[in-house]
Amino acid sequence: MKEFELINRYFTGRGVTRRDVDVGIGDDCALVNVPDNCQLAITTDTLVEGVHFFADIPPRALGHRALAVNLSDLAAMGAEPTWVSLGLTLPKIDPEWLEEFTEGMHEIAEYFNVQIIGGDTTQGPLTITICAKGTVPKGKALTRSGANVGDWIYVTGNLGDAALAIESRKNNWPLSESDAASALKKFHYPSPRVAAGQALRGIASSAIDISDGLLADLSHILRRSDVTAQIHADKVPMSDALRHSIPQDQALKLALAYGDDYELLYTVSQDNKLIMESKLHQYGVEPICIGQIQPGNDDIELLYDNQPWLLPESGFEHFS
Amino acid sequence: MKEFELINRYFTGRGVTRRDVDVGIGDDCALVNVPDNCQLAITTDTLVEGVHFFADIPPRALGHRALAVNLSDLAAMGAEPTWVSLGLTLPKIDPEWLEEFTEGMHEIAEYFNVQIIGGDTTQGPLTITICAKGTVPKGKALTRSGANVGDWIYVTGNLGDAALAIESRKNNWPLSESDAASALKKFHYPSPRVAAGQALRGIASSAIDISDGLLADLSHILRRSDVTAQIHADKVPMSDALRHSIPQDQALKLALAYGDDYELLYTVSQDNKLIMESKLHQYGVEPICIGQIQPGNDDIELLYDNQPWLLPESGFEHFS
Repeated sequence: MKEFELINRYFTGRGVTRRDVDVGIGDDCALVNVPDNCQLAITTDTLVEGVHFFADIPPRALGHRALAVNLSDLAAMGAEPTWVSLGLTLPKIDPEWLEEFTEGMHEIAEYFNVQIIGGDTTQGPLTITICAKGTVPKGKALTRSGANVGDWIYVTGNLGDAALAIESRKNNWPLSESDAASALKKFHYPSPRVAAGQALRGIASSAIDISDGLLADLSHILRRSDVTAQIHADKVPMSDALRHSIPQDQALKLALAYGDDYELLYTVSQDNKLIMESKLHQYGVEPICIGQIQPGNDDIELLYDNQPWLLPESGFEHFS
Repeated sequence: MKEFELINRYFTGRGVTRRDVDVGIGDDCALVNVPDNCQLAITTDTLVEGVHFFADIPPRALGHRALAVNLSDLAAMGAEPTWVSLGLTLPKIDPEWLEEFTEGMHEIAEYFNVQIIGGDTTQGPLTITICAKGTVPKGKALTRSGANVGDWIYVTGNLGDAALAIESRKNNWPLSESDAASALKKFHYPSPRVAAGQALRGIASSAIDISDGLLADLSHILRRSDVTAQIHADKVPMSDALRHSIPQDQALKLALAYGDDYELLYTVSQDNKLIMESKLHQYGVEPICIGQIQPGNDDIELLYDNQPWLLPESGFEHFS
């Protein structure tokens, strides 16, 4: 199959067609329209076989996940996802694999009304680079730099399940079948918090998505906002699967320092606390308060049952 | 070196800073502003080691070339390049290599006033995926679909030099040192025809950049415009290096069917011929007429000295 046929078969005319796209797949560039009152938000994430996923990942999950991790970055800015470009490097053309991979990608694209507007398919080691674009009303984007002393620190859901999926496999942890399945589902099919991110516009003071681990991602907010934080480890939400599969200190390590969950981490002032909770409840999200922003630039202060508590590991780094 | 340090050292605060960028590298997304009267043009190209370049390519050339091939797609739409996102997958962190690679990329970015607004660095086989963005006044973009019967077919410069660099190496062709150097320079440091592309807005009826080979890229225009073409092979411009290095039929094959030159191929009506030539001369570009659009959807008719002429090979395909 030639590149041209591949694109025709798996992309052209499939998936979402947005009215703000004048030229989609099939020309030198796509041509799209950004509303006059909006800024354009742009993010890029790469997934490499053997680094970001196991070689035997179901291709449908890979298609979903590759797009989901990018949409999560748009969610963290409060942006509305609109268009994506796909750089797809494949070792060989396997029609069954491609059918499943593109189906997984088209499914989540349809759910979020995102159009695949172009890309490049090349031959080489399996690598997926997506550049996702979205729009956000001017001046309303959530950034990492707005956290203020006294702001409350929230997350949008359970942490550590994706980590459980990966580490239980690497270390042969004896998980029950249902726990293993629920953890793996969280790793394979993360749900980017797109609606929550948009609901937090004008309400949260800062936000980030948890891709590298709660503590690592929180430290990005703290550095950019020139503050520090106190975190109650015992408040960090974890699934039942994580709680009863492994010892508590191990579970907390995964929840605090591992990443790959794609929940949002954000800060909100005392004044906006109630309106934020009510807004998120409208979207079926239960926001969990896990700590508070503090003055200074020391390390994050970790507490458990209000007592100082230590966690040795840092978040996942691609080069370490 | 961790990912965070790598980005800080080679990207943050280096290169172009544009006033239309509100948030650049360092948040979940970049935030940029598209002028109200403009459309956004978006393109993506991936370069894979061993497929698109030899492993021993100078890193500075690779940095230049990776960005140049993307800017060439923007040029073919008549867009003004503005922002790029970089997906960089590296087998290891080699500071010397990275210094050269990023220098090559920053140099061409500065020349075209393009800001690197974000990206992702990951570990894996050397792969570079760039998503380049640009702006074009609404309704003024050049596409592949506007060629009309009777329009003249032009290219912006010599073809086949990049092909000569690659094939002479693969096949041990005995090139003179200066011919080999000039061909290699064209392959390593292509000059995207950004100014020419913008000059052709409102004047050319269709355009494409020659990445897959003159005939392959012309066929994209013909298919989208529902026409065919007559091409005078003897009019196709070739460098002296290409003309006197290899037999004429071999040289023509490289010039017509190989690609990697990143000149523009475009069509223009009889009415716009003079104004087009004068406009391009202002930018130091000598447009060369190589044929004419014909009715029908037959294969491209190739002539040499006005006699029917055959070329067996098709353009480069990533999967064949």
